[in-house]
Amino acid sequence: MSEPYASLREKAAALDAQDELAKQRELFALDEAVYLDGNSLGALPRHVAGRLADVITREWGELRIRSWDESGWWTAPERIGERIAPLVGAAPGQVVVGDSTSVNVFKAVVAAARLAGEDRDEILVDATTFPTDGYIAESAARMTGKRLVPLAPGDVPAAVGPRTAAALVNHVDFRTGRLHDLPGITAAVQAAGALAVWDLCHSAGALPVGLDAHGVDLAVGCTYKYLNGGPGAPAYLYVAERHQAGFDSPLPGWTGHRDPFAMTPGYTAADGATRGRVGTPDILSMLALESALDVWDGVSMDAVRAKSLALTDFFLECVRAYAPEGRVTSLTPEAHEERGSQVALRCAEAPQVMETLIARGVVGDLRRPDVLRFGFTPLYVGFADTERAARVLAEVLTDVPGQATAV
Amino acid sequence: MSEPYASLREKAAALDAQDELAKQRELFALDEAVYLDGNSLGALPRHVAGRLADVITREWGELRIRSWDESGWWTAPERIGERIAPLVGAAPGQVVVGDSTSVNVFKAVVAAARLAGEDRDEILVDATTFPTDGYIAESAARMTGKRLVPLAPGDVPAAVGPRTAAALVNHVDFRTGRLHDLPGITAAVQAAGALAVWDLCHSAGALPVGLDAHGVDLAVGCTYKYLNGGPGAPAYLYVAERHQAGFDSPLPGWTGHRDPFAMTPGYTAADGATRGRVGTPDILSMLALESALDVWDGVSMDAVRAKSLALTDFFLECVRAYAPEGRVTSLTPEAHEERGSQVALRCAEAPQVMETLIARGVVGDLRRPDVLRFGFTPLYVGFADTERAARVLAEVLTDVPGQATAV
Repeated sequence: MSEPYASLREKAAALDAQDELAKQRELFALDEAVYLDGNSLGALPRHVAGRLADVITREWGELRIRSWDESGWWTAPERIGERIAPLVGAAPGQVVVGDSTSVNVFKAVVAAARLAGEDRDEILVDATTFPTDGYIAESAARMTGKRLVPLAPGDVPAAVGPRTAAALVNHVDFRTGRLHDLPGITAAVQAAGALAVWDLCHSAGALPVGLDAHGVDLAVGCTYKYLNGGPGAPAYLYVAERHQAGFDSPLPGWTGHRDPFAMTPGYTAADGATRGRVGTPDILSMLALESALDVWDGVSMDAVRAKSLALTDFFLECVRAYAPEGRVTSLTPEAHEERGSQVALRCAEAPQVMETLIARGVVGDLRRPDVLRFGFTPLYVGFADTERAARVLAEVLTDVPGQATAV
Repeated sequence: MSEPYASLREKAAALDAQDELAKQRELFALDEAVYLDGNSLGALPRHVAGRLADVITREWGELRIRSWDESGWWTAPERIGERIAPLVGAAPGQVVVGDSTSVNVFKAVVAAARLAGEDRDEILVDATTFPTDGYIAESAARMTGKRLVPLAPGDVPAAVGPRTAAALVNHVDFRTGRLHDLPGITAAVQAAGALAVWDLCHSAGALPVGLDAHGVDLAVGCTYKYLNGGPGAPAYLYVAERHQAGFDSPLPGWTGHRDPFAMTPGYTAADGATRGRVGTPDILSMLALESALDVWDGVSMDAVRAKSLALTDFFLECVRAYAPEGRVTSLTPEAHEERGSQVALRCAEAPQVMETLIARGVVGDLRRPDVLRFGFTPLYVGFADTERAARVLAEVLTDVPGQATAV
């Protein structure tokens, strides 16, 4: 075996041997492929299948309607919220699970606009965000009589002002993997008297978020990426305790009512995060998520972050060592404080390269037109996997005709 | 055995022997209890457990991200919509599955208000409806600058006028079981130039709805009652074909975009019912629902309706024959054209009576403060069950001290 392969393989082995999270991998259903798409769909925690079988056969099949009380179905949105809370740095009572991320963005942005008051008529939105946030924020602005201002996250501190009601920013850019400055942007937004709303889809479960520590106002996130909750698993909404009494949901469904079974014609919102609830909770998906969260027991988010950075550092090192000159360019920041848990490589032949990579057992994904995206899930991706992914990528780049990327 | 027990038991046996739907019962997980709460949570179709095990273990666990294409996850909302469409009398291309009923009420009422135009500033809402519809309609009215007018469904034809944008009515009243006049109310609303929005939660799967035949504009419904889709299973939205091009969703999430994977900053709605989609579909719950719908294969909704009426007629007959004088009063209309698939009995001691009934194996539910509610699911409730339920009810009423109900 020639250099640099041998030395990087040795390094991978050494890093894997020191990895305190390595034992988590056996909790997941994985095969010989290197799965670097956990930032799109997290792998299955193996025990979830048994739990869901029990939910279906016994809780639904045998207990039926009694399960709303006896199996704890009714309180699942709050209970699972409490499981997610420590993963995003939230004290109890502020996170509730349900609906999709898009629906929660709508709740959060409308509620933020209302909390800010009528004098503030602008909503700033991260123009580089996953697009659903922009689409939904546009609707929220339209329906609250405000104007949407798309801008780069880094421009938020300069743009925020007395007219700003709220700013919606994605913690990690879904395309480039850039980690935005949550503490700094939050502080700047609040200094101007506005509310900071964060989308944690690409950060929760991959790095410490510190919602309470940084005084975030509202946040949303999905649970099917680094939280491994299953395809389309319910999202969550964080409402900081100080905003709960004023949280005025645009979707005041019956399960967010103070006394839902009174079935009164007038709406009185429940206390706490419960007022973020809308309709009847989606129990099968929700209890799969609850079960999936068991893999976090005893795991420190600081250890996850340290491994995540080590993995992405190592992947970039291997790519630099192996890949043919000029064929790929990293879009992911080198600086740790600006990097999430993915590496995005621009490549002119990205569609064909990703298709071939997947066929050869390295699963990333394509972001059209020219981005190869590789997500590193510290709970189940190792350093040998990472070295192999870079090596196979280099082989594919050699086999797929191409040209140097214009940066 | 004394009369009238013997004769009603004989009648039950004769009715069961003639029941062409009786064979469907074996498709469901049922036990010795008489389950009359399928209008709250439908029983488990037994094969769903195996299907979900495959979804979890193979589609999520082995194929992972590939399942979005290869297992048809991405198109599940439309595909399952097409399974529901014939059950509610809709031609293809008009029903999409996803989100909760409450969220779909919001989409439908806002879209109806927008379709009606700014000159029309009132939204009529069924004041007797399941309360979430009223809460959400209030929010939709507030956010579209309209005024909400709650009224009895029977008063809609007299109240609808040139200021009316839309009317939201529940097809069957969740409390009394009264079936409202969908063709007549729809025609009256449309004659005034407004849009008719129907909530089918308590009718779909229990009787023919005829959305296309009666020219309904928009409709929503849940899938966990008579459609047996599982606890909190995703709801559906019907958008009549003629309104699709103008359907302007307040929740324009990325999956309703014409080209979602282009991930462009601007929103362009997809054609057809797809524009009712919002976020990433909740696959586990959605595919459980899809599997559950297999029990409808070869079932005629006319046969379901005929059996439903026969069951509720027979239950009322048995209750009249067995129950102590004056202890219960039916709130459910006698006339078939005004009756859904449940019987609601007012009883001063309803809480204690229902608790005792359930302990004795007859499962209905309580609607506070004084309503005993019994749902009759024609696919798995038989006439002997019905006779037994009335008989046990009479015994419980005898054992629970009480007084005649003031009507």
